[in-house]
Amino acid sequence: MNEERWLLPAGIDEVLPAQARVMETLRRELLDLYASWGYELVIPPFIDYLESLLTGTGQDLDLQTFKLTDQLSGRLLGVRADMTPQVARIDAHHLRRDAPTRLCYLGTVLHTRSDGFAGTRSPLQIGAEIYGHSGIESDTEILRLIMLTLRAAGIRESYLDLGHVGIYRGLARQAGLSPAGEHALFDALQRKAVPEIEALIAELGLGGAPARMLSALAELNGADALARAEALLREADRPVREAVDYLRRLADELGRWLPDVSIHYDLAELRGYRYKTGAVFAAFVPGWGLEIARGGRYDDIGRVFGRARPAVGFSTDLKELLRHGRRSDTSDAAIYAPWSSAPALQEAVDRLRASGRRVIHALPGLEQDLRDPGCRQVLVERDGRWELDDILAE
Amino acid sequence: MNEERWLLPAGIDEVLPAQARVMETLRRELLDLYASWGYELVIPPFIDYLESLLTGTGQDLDLQTFKLTDQLSGRLLGVRADMTPQVARIDAHHLRRDAPTRLCYLGTVLHTRSDGFAGTRSPLQIGAEIYGHSGIESDTEILRLIMLTLRAAGIRESYLDLGHVGIYRGLARQAGLSPAGEHALFDALQRKAVPEIEALIAELGLGGAPARMLSALAELNGADALARAEALLREADRPVREAVDYLRRLADELGRWLPDVSIHYDLAELRGYRYKTGAVFAAFVPGWGLEIARGGRYDDIGRVFGRARPAVGFSTDLKELLRHGRRSDTSDAAIYAPWSSAPALQEAVDRLRASGRRVIHALPGLEQDLRDPGCRQVLVERDGRWELDDILAE
Repeated sequence: MNEERWLLPAGIDEVLPAQARVMETLRRELLDLYASWGYELVIPPFIDYLESLLTGTGQDLDLQTFKLTDQLSGRLLGVRADMTPQVARIDAHHLRRDAPTRLCYLGTVLHTRSDGFAGTRSPLQIGAEIYGHSGIESDTEILRLIMLTLRAAGIRESYLDLGHVGIYRGLARQAGLSPAGEHALFDALQRKAVPEIEALIAELGLGGAPARMLSALAELNGADALARAEALLREADRPVREAVDYLRRLADELGRWLPDVSIHYDLAELRGYRYKTGAVFAAFVPGWGLEIARGGRYDDIGRVFGRARPAVGFSTDLKELLRHGRRSDTSDAAIYAPWSSAPALQEAVDRLRASGRRVIHALPGLEQDLRDPGCRQVLVERDGRWELDDILAE
Repeated sequence: MNEERWLLPAGIDEVLPAQARVMETLRRELLDLYASWGYELVIPPFIDYLESLLTGTGQDLDLQTFKLTDQLSGRLLGVRADMTPQVARIDAHHLRRDAPTRLCYLGTVLHTRSDGFAGTRSPLQIGAEIYGHSGIESDTEILRLIMLTLRAAGIRESYLDLGHVGIYRGLARQAGLSPAGEHALFDALQRKAVPEIEALIAELGLGGAPARMLSALAELNGADALARAEALLREADRPVREAVDYLRRLADELGRWLPDVSIHYDLAELRGYRYKTGAVFAAFVPGWGLEIARGGRYDDIGRVFGRARPAVGFSTDLKELLRHGRRSDTSDAAIYAPWSSAPALQEAVDRLRASGRRVIHALPGLEQDLRDPGCRQVLVERDGRWELDDILAE
């Protein structure tokens, strides 16, 4: 029984000192980075009325959300599984500004089941959003922030994957797909299950250019996919061609700001298809199959909170960044001080602490060899003055 | 319906930009303060197996804890209502050091009902603990940290309230109280319900010195209560007299370190009586009836996790500190920059951001008067150089 008391639920972790220091440092660097770009921190609540958390987000989030009963109101609460809708509500309801608004956030979210992010059920979600601007410039700014976020975490190699939900949405409309057909084909496309896609297209009775274009979609991925799409989707309706053109302009703009970034395309990969409205993107680390950051445009997200305006943003998991990056604990050695309230010692200790050093007081009654193993120096008195001596290894 | 989507559950709040900046600044200052004293940050999980959260903590915490069912294991989970038992587990199970260990933590906890902290159900709990030392020195260090925490929050006036659970516990034993009697009298003492206390003492058939001393306990509070206790409890058994003596020595030591601190005593107020084992303390702000920080000694807390060792600590609610303190948002005005990837501009922007300034890029397509209202300066090009101009009010 005692043995079991300290087991943690699967996918739930606790963070011990060395790792917590590294996490806290990266946390501050990222929030400072976003602040220096004009992103204002907001802190949404950990629990919320369920309908408020799930509004407009689709079924996936519902399954991922832990439910609680509120003893005060009798209503159903949820533990947030994604902070994006909460931040959208803050923009739409609380801030209500006309000017573009840049917000950032950081906090733990909980998932009922692990969603692939290395099996965790408690990511430390961090992200940034721009509300009130529609166009390649705000997409570009968010993509630049993704790359700076990865760099701050010490992730040296990565690439961006761009897509646009307007391409599949437009092709489905052009082909006259029913909602059920659109959903089934979407599902097969996500899995890039080519034989299944072909079978579905036949089953749905599609033919001609729409069938050709939908079936080509699964293979429109890679660094050259946009060029191939421009050729293959020439016969598509205007919204589809506009989406392809938007991606081209976005890639060109991004190239001007980040000439070294490696850009891939995946025109069938549609994360958050149900609520995204434009460009979608993800960042990948070579050799790891899952995205390390993701985002996109979801212009309608504020509508349910009474105010629809353009929105684009990204989010990632700080713990996942640390797992893939190269950050080490740089904390310096501590200083050992005797237990004494003598004013001269207190002044010396206060001064050292104010300068950023760690000073640990001895606690009387303990054996000398029980002093903190992290101490490398000790304060000693000489002629009424307190000085630092090195602690010599034995 | 739309109107209701942004209502928050009672006692649950979201933090908007200006307040979030102040909160983030205080958060960092306090964690840096604790780090400079040798307290290592740990981050316990938000949810945990219920039995692990409630072990040894008594019924109050059970009632305060939101319960969830784990879909993966079918077991009952809880959302932490107090981080102290989790931190004790980290010391007992994960760190297993022989040397004294100083840990600090910060995070949101949730309560099913508001517990008086200004009606909140989601305090941002912050605290510090020393494991592995028993005595007035570690109590003193924790009490000093409480006072520095309040000062960092801008709380100018406060006083400390000291007590010791050994006094009531010892008197109850001396009087031969049954567990039920001890519990009933404890309850009346917490409410300082003097007539009820007298009635209970009579009902329990107590007489002589024990009855006199127990009945005096309710009035042993105030700045002079310790001196009165030394006289009134002269006939008490040795553990009671030792507890009174311990408080005297603690007050003397504290006076050496913090000569200006105002110390009160309350020998009947026994927060966390069930798991506390020695001195208990709280900090108060004049004119506000509830404590702003609380703590004490609970030497046995690690036993259920396989390793009992002495422990003393405190915790407070960062949001409550901000409500009572004087901290204001000191963020400086931002700088507006045109949207351009021109290298000379990018360099100027990068340099300003690296120096801690906020620089916000214009987003093309918006009206000029929609620029961020927080901007007071703008980057303009003159002869190929980018310079800062003031934005003149109209």
